[in-house]
Amino acid sequence: MIGITEIEVLLNTRDKLGLKETLSGYTPEEIADLLNHLEEEDLLLVFKAIDRETAFAAYELLDINFQIALLDLLPNKLVTLIINDMSPDKRTALFQELDNDMLNKHLKLLTLNERTVALNLLGYPENSIGRLMTPDYIAVRQDWTVSNVLNYIRKYGEDSETLDVIYIIDDRGKLIDDIKVREILLAETNTRIDEIINGRFTSLSVLDDAEVAVNVFSKNNRVALPVIDQNGLLLGIVTMDDVLRLSKQEDTEDIQKLGGVEALEDPYMEVPVPLMVKKRAVWLVVLFLGEMLTASAMTFFEDEIAQAVVLALFVPLIVSSGGNSGSQAATLIIRAMALGEITIRDWWLVLKREIISGFALGVILAIMGFLRIALWNYFTHIYGEHWLGIAFTVSFSLVGIVMWGTLMGSMLPIILKRVGIDPATSSAPFVATLVDVTGLIIYFSFALFFLKGTLL
Amino acid sequence: MIGITEIEVLLNTRDKLGLKETLSGYTPEEIADLLNHLEEEDLLLVFKAIDRETAFAAYELLDINFQIALLDLLPNKLVTLIINDMSPDKRTALFQELDNDMLNKHLKLLTLNERTVALNLLGYPENSIGRLMTPDYIAVRQDWTVSNVLNYIRKYGEDSETLDVIYIIDDRGKLIDDIKVREILLAETNTRIDEIINGRFTSLSVLDDAEVAVNVFSKNNRVALPVIDQNGLLLGIVTMDDVLRLSKQEDTEDIQKLGGVEALEDPYMEVPVPLMVKKRAVWLVVLFLGEMLTASAMTFFEDEIAQAVVLALFVPLIVSSGGNSGSQAATLIIRAMALGEITIRDWWLVLKREIISGFALGVILAIMGFLRIALWNYFTHIYGEHWLGIAFTVSFSLVGIVMWGTLMGSMLPIILKRVGIDPATSSAPFVATLVDVTGLIIYFSFALFFLKGTLL
Repeated sequence: MIGITEIEVLLNTRDKLGLKETLSGYTPEEIADLLNHLEEEDLLLVFKAIDRETAFAAYELLDINFQIALLDLLPNKLVTLIINDMSPDKRTALFQELDNDMLNKHLKLLTLNERTVALNLLGYPENSIGRLMTPDYIAVRQDWTVSNVLNYIRKYGEDSETLDVIYIIDDRGKLIDDIKVREILLAETNTRIDEIINGRFTSLSVLDDAEVAVNVFSKNNRVALPVIDQNGLLLGIVTMDDVLRLSKQEDTEDIQKLGGVEALEDPYMEVPVPLMVKKRAVWLVVLFLGEMLTASAMTFFEDEIAQAVVLALFVPLIVSSGGNSGSQAATLIIRAMALGEITIRDWWLVLKREIISGFALGVILAIMGFLRIALWNYFTHIYGEHWLGIAFTVSFSLVGIVMWGTLMGSMLPIILKRVGIDPATSSAPFVATLVDVTGLIIYFSFALFFLKGTLL
Repeated sequence: MIGITEIEVLLNTRDKLGLKETLSGYTPEEIADLLNHLEEEDLLLVFKAIDRETAFAAYELLDINFQIALLDLLPNKLVTLIINDMSPDKRTALFQELDNDMLNKHLKLLTLNERTVALNLLGYPENSIGRLMTPDYIAVRQDWTVSNVLNYIRKYGEDSETLDVIYIIDDRGKLIDDIKVREILLAETNTRIDEIINGRFTSLSVLDDAEVAVNVFSKNNRVALPVIDQNGLLLGIVTMDDVLRLSKQEDTEDIQKLGGVEALEDPYMEVPVPLMVKKRAVWLVVLFLGEMLTASAMTFFEDEIAQAVVLALFVPLIVSSGGNSGSQAATLIIRAMALGEITIRDWWLVLKREIISGFALGVILAIMGFLRIALWNYFTHIYGEHWLGIAFTVSFSLVGIVMWGTLMGSMLPIILKRVGIDPATSSAPFVATLVDVTGLIIYFSFALFFLKGTLL
């Protein structure tokens, strides 16, 4: 690791020579890590103190915000060199964050060749495999020998994103097979490629979404996977590190949605406070509006509360139990759907499981609630002569509400997915709010049933 | 993809020959995918219908539950061959799921060599890099030539997990550098290795936890990373696909904890209902016990509620707003900590951001609450002459409670981490429950302040 304090001293004293010397021993990864922690005005100084090769490699590894900042800070000539040198997938990730003016300006700096590549990749929808693709791979023909292939790699391998896998295509560019480089290295040099291949390969379709790619990668021990179109033509490859980053990002968005926040898109510390307030306010306001219905529901039962204030005492307990069981169910189902463990067609199986679980959980809480009221009343007589009616009201409500919360929490994500909305939208707070209103109605209905003629 | 219905027909008719023929064209990945979807009694039939090489490769790719099932079903002789052939990291993953008897039985089936490897890997703590390591890598010396290295790979490369990167060690086994295989392929055959290496490499420490590995991988474009001990000795490598799986699994556990469920450890559909009820009941009961304090708090203010039933009407609204803002803050902070965006030392920065955010969010809800009461009262006079006091009580409470929820939600994960507990334990429901009780106290305190002498 680079000693950041040491660098800071050199930066403060503007000691360019010292900076150059100190930084010369570091890897592009370490340099990128350092740059990601610097203030904007220091970026340029560090960037200029490192050799060109390291600088270019480090640039690709920078957070996109810093890449954009440097596009503005660096002289046009250097920018031209950098973006022409970037790997197409990283460049696509950068370009899709630029506004239209910036994008056009930088597209013009690319050579015709690179511009075609960039425009092509940008044509695929966001979060699709297409955006993650790189056309830098090695493709060979099946009638070549191992020695041909090795020579070809030596000549053209420089640009390739990964040399772990080599692709075999026919004259029309259709993918016939992929082969691990190890198999080529392990073979005799005069072996023909079609003697090694077996026609079995795993590929992604350019129309697949990113979640599919993540699943395929975690099941196949591959560094990269080929991407084909509907006719089987090889369009490019996607590498595992890009998928890992995208997967982390999608998980983060899911988690934030589950917590009832719009996805932040940037690291917590980098999101300006006003933007963060906005992202949180949206859902908080929606939930607040929904929760206002509880005030209406309570108003509806105002007379009952006035007659038996004791009923009001258990409202938060009842309401939150429904919310908690709903959160649990929603979280489990949303995650299981994201991982592909459950599909919409499984709704009936899920429903059966959740009815049983919800009932069991409800009974557990009901027993605890009953004991709580019975014991308190035994020692303090706080609930008076009608304590049994109150205890029954609370217990039966708990069974009903926990089951209702569990059902809502488990079915809502499936319904949302069915109508084409991200299931993670039915966040824990969202389900809790929905359950709160109905929970009150269930509670007061049981109260009317058990306490009519006594307390009510 | 394999047509599952076709296979099912063959399985039902016990048509072994047809099965053999149909399955012969498929990759180990496809076979594993098929096996993962079969009933236990059909596993064996399919497994025996495929050639040994494919069967062994498919076994490694199976879900661990199915691997364990097959250990029981297959003859001992075949089990011996399979587990000796497995890559050490996959075998460690399988072995750590076995109970002690099963483990000892299967350790005995390993050759002395493989047993040493297995026991060594099992010695590292769960979820540590050590458990994910494989000793199957290529290590060479710096005085070798490219041609030496290529010959060495051809001879010993078969067992290596990945040939994308080659490691250079000194005579004591200390890691000096790693080098991408492409650089070797691109170099002239008589170049010495020490002419190519630059002494810059990224490595993991065997004591690192898995989350660190995930971070390092997503920042470095590598298929595998070397793992060293405190003295820099090369112990093994970890590959990216293992890290991807572990990362998914840890994210799932985090998400489940955030939703207030003990981590399920297995896919939703595979967890027996009683076990699932148990995993959910633990937290639900803890939360219920905590939430019982709301009943106590409400009892404490019973006289005030009896005097002004209108106060009870807003309890669910007030309480849930605190819970929702707490859930948001907890989710954001827990995720940011898991991704390494925030460390414990940042608590002061987080606190400042959250105080501002919480205040802003509270004011937004307070204004909405005020308008709700003012408008309703304008049209229906439902809140009587003291509506302004009620409106102020609700509005000020909302500011207080949302700020309180935000602070608790953001600081609790940091405090838990500080004392060595997984921050994700402070789940959304957990924070909501904590905030509920204090929320009631805040609410009734404001009520006493604004309504003393009028309603109260």
